[in-house]
Amino acid sequence: MPHKTVVVGGGAAGLGAAGGVKAADPANDVVVYTQFEDVAYSPCGIPYVHGKEIETFEALFLAEKEAYVRAGIDVHYQTEVTAIDVRRKTIQVAGEGEVSWDRLVIATGFHYADPGVPGSDLDGLYYVKNIRQAMEWDKVIDRAKVAVVVNATPLGLEMVTALAHRGIETHLIDPHPWPLAEMADPDIMAPVEESWRELGVRLHFNTTLEAFLGSGRVRGVLTSQGELPADFAVVATHKEPENRLAAQAGLKTGPTGGLIVDERMATSARDVFAAGDCAELPHGVTGVGLQGLTGSHAYAQGKVAGFNAGGGSKTYQPVYIPWGTPAGKWIIGGASFGETTAKALGIPYVLGAADGISRARYYPGVKKVRVKLLAEPGSLRLIGAQMVGGEGIKERADFLATAIKFGLTLNDLAVMENVYSPAIGALNEPIVVAAQNGVNAAGKG
Amino acid sequence: MPHKTVVVGGGAAGLGAAGGVKAADPANDVVVYTQFEDVAYSPCGIPYVHGKEIETFEALFLAEKEAYVRAGIDVHYQTEVTAIDVRRKTIQVAGEGEVSWDRLVIATGFHYADPGVPGSDLDGLYYVKNIRQAMEWDKVIDRAKVAVVVNATPLGLEMVTALAHRGIETHLIDPHPWPLAEMADPDIMAPVEESWRELGVRLHFNTTLEAFLGSGRVRGVLTSQGELPADFAVVATHKEPENRLAAQAGLKTGPTGGLIVDERMATSARDVFAAGDCAELPHGVTGVGLQGLTGSHAYAQGKVAGFNAGGGSKTYQPVYIPWGTPAGKWIIGGASFGETTAKALGIPYVLGAADGISRARYYPGVKKVRVKLLAEPGSLRLIGAQMVGGEGIKERADFLATAIKFGLTLNDLAVMENVYSPAIGALNEPIVVAAQNGVNAAGKG
Repeated sequence: MPHKTVVVGGGAAGLGAAGGVKAADPANDVVVYTQFEDVAYSPCGIPYVHGKEIETFEALFLAEKEAYVRAGIDVHYQTEVTAIDVRRKTIQVAGEGEVSWDRLVIATGFHYADPGVPGSDLDGLYYVKNIRQAMEWDKVIDRAKVAVVVNATPLGLEMVTALAHRGIETHLIDPHPWPLAEMADPDIMAPVEESWRELGVRLHFNTTLEAFLGSGRVRGVLTSQGELPADFAVVATHKEPENRLAAQAGLKTGPTGGLIVDERMATSARDVFAAGDCAELPHGVTGVGLQGLTGSHAYAQGKVAGFNAGGGSKTYQPVYIPWGTPAGKWIIGGASFGETTAKALGIPYVLGAADGISRARYYPGVKKVRVKLLAEPGSLRLIGAQMVGGEGIKERADFLATAIKFGLTLNDLAVMENVYSPAIGALNEPIVVAAQNGVNAAGKG
Repeated sequence: MPHKTVVVGGGAAGLGAAGGVKAADPANDVVVYTQFEDVAYSPCGIPYVHGKEIETFEALFLAEKEAYVRAGIDVHYQTEVTAIDVRRKTIQVAGEGEVSWDRLVIATGFHYADPGVPGSDLDGLYYVKNIRQAMEWDKVIDRAKVAVVVNATPLGLEMVTALAHRGIETHLIDPHPWPLAEMADPDIMAPVEESWRELGVRLHFNTTLEAFLGSGRVRGVLTSQGELPADFAVVATHKEPENRLAAQAGLKTGPTGGLIVDERMATSARDVFAAGDCAELPHGVTGVGLQGLTGSHAYAQGKVAGFNAGGGSKTYQPVYIPWGTPAGKWIIGGASFGETTAKALGIPYVLGAADGISRARYYPGVKKVRVKLLAEPGSLRLIGAQMVGGEGIKERADFLATAIKFGLTLNDLAVMENVYSPAIGALNEPIVVAAQNGVNAAGKG
């Protein structure tokens, strides 16, 4: 019997869910509420438009609004959901009143952590998220000479590189000793730092934000190391799950603040599902809850949540988190976790590392590739990986996440066959060399 | 107790073997005999120097001769081995007489199949193999206006692209209906053919070689479809195992003509090993013997053969053959086999195919990626894959070969996590979409 599903949120998770509801049964009704003017654009592309790698914001739109109408997905734009009642199975919608549902999918995403310093109410603080705002901000960037990026998070990395490409004097401040320090290893980030310096970026590590300075509009940033000038500041703080509504409705959240979901993406309330940045998913190796993964994860989770909301049955599996991004002149990436996280969590590991190359040594465009593999002592089962290089980092990350999931060992990877063709791959695949080094390290250990 | 190992052949397999002998025990003696002036260069790079992608032949050399001396590897250059006696454990060496060994590694490589047509003794027929000859041929290419490449084998593909880049009127003749027809699927090769046409290459499929024309020197090629002019011809016929010596010594060969070896790379004769293009290895899925794999395979086989010859113990595993190469404006690749081979061998399969993209749709440099996955009906275990695209084909081929080896199914790949980052990867990884399509096809089948 067809259901009516309401989806709160119009990002990757929300639209994945809407599609999932229809995939389960085209007769299902589905209504999506979003506070924004648009759905179905790629927010991940915003930094690259600012960096002029992509010509226009218009390029980021994925589908016309008509496409959703044709698909039978009823999207309510610029519409605020103000409350959820899981017992009465209703939501309160500003301007629409009470709306009922048979199934609910919460896909409310994230907000940036409040920087929590004086001056946080000034104009000129850019929280990168919405495409219409990004278009306005791009005009601000046009007129700016100097900018401060607060925190070397994944978004911070992208914005630093984008603003440097744009020719702006860019300062990066971060309280840790190296960028992306909560997930990436220092030796992976070292070449990135070097390439930022080549691009003219001013790096301020071990430096905390103390205040935004100015009256009305930001004109500088006060840090633990002194004052920096700023025509604007990018506030790339931690992405926290946006769960105000869900918490008010009594849904259970985990240690990260994300909604607790089971493998069907069902929350603690009957007939209520969640997906994307507002939910918490178990790490495949550690079982520890994680929040704030990628758009690809959000979309896949949304599809599962929506399919189940729509009367189908699918499961979403623990995550091994292949990741990758350009940073300075390099591409960084990995799967699961690196040494920094393993040490922080007290997870013992054997390390296999190698510095290889992406093509034949003599072929133009050849680039260094550093691969680090972490394995469980004894079994040598792969448990994590990090890399810095150029071409093929994304595909290697996908591979290594799958290798972790399926229990491959360093011994398996040490005898892996690999493509050798001068223009596209070296005689010795860096993953293989890293695995061989790890096997040797384990033997001597 | 240290042994004396003789290695016949100075290519990737032979030098891998020499290193393996020393790795097993640095006190081992090892002598390498090669008929050429050089060892340790990359023959795979030769077409790219002809194509001007690489500036000089000198760039292809990997190590100075001194490096081998320092490693304790005694290389005899320009030295012909004329006979092997496996009972007396000797070889006959031109100019050196009888040389004894404790262990022998045969790494005699391949020769191109005799085209078997009138005029095969003319000058101007280029068999791409030796770097010194390639340097001389490059001068011929400089003066040439028109060339014929005989057969769309992997080398034929590379040479066609190289000569077209070089601005030479290039004709390709091949008896099959599409290029690389013995291993690649027609839909994988279609974009390659199109890009060759854009480069000005004249393609002649379903066309057999009947004679090389000329007196003294080739001036044309007679085909089943008529005559073609040629200032020179590249003879890229099948690479046959070079096993004249081994056959005379009574070593067993398989259906491909390659030497039969066990998992230790040991031949049918006691203390005699073989590696590289002269040996035959079992395909991991079918168990069928294969010969003529890549330089990467040859090197890895050599290391195992040498290590065992030197008193160690290692095994070489059945092959799943990740492969990849540039072809025209595309990169093609795969693992195990594609539809064409599956049909020829009568292997049933479920097909999952998808046409995806390499980056976000809006990111500059985005390229189409076609992925075809073949799976065993019922279990949906992956048994083969072919692709055409750009970046990341090499790494995907490595991954898919490993996925086949470890028994991953289309269901596993259909829920694989993937990196999403606009500059390096699309929201939907083409492998995942192909797997999902395969699962759907199997469900409806």
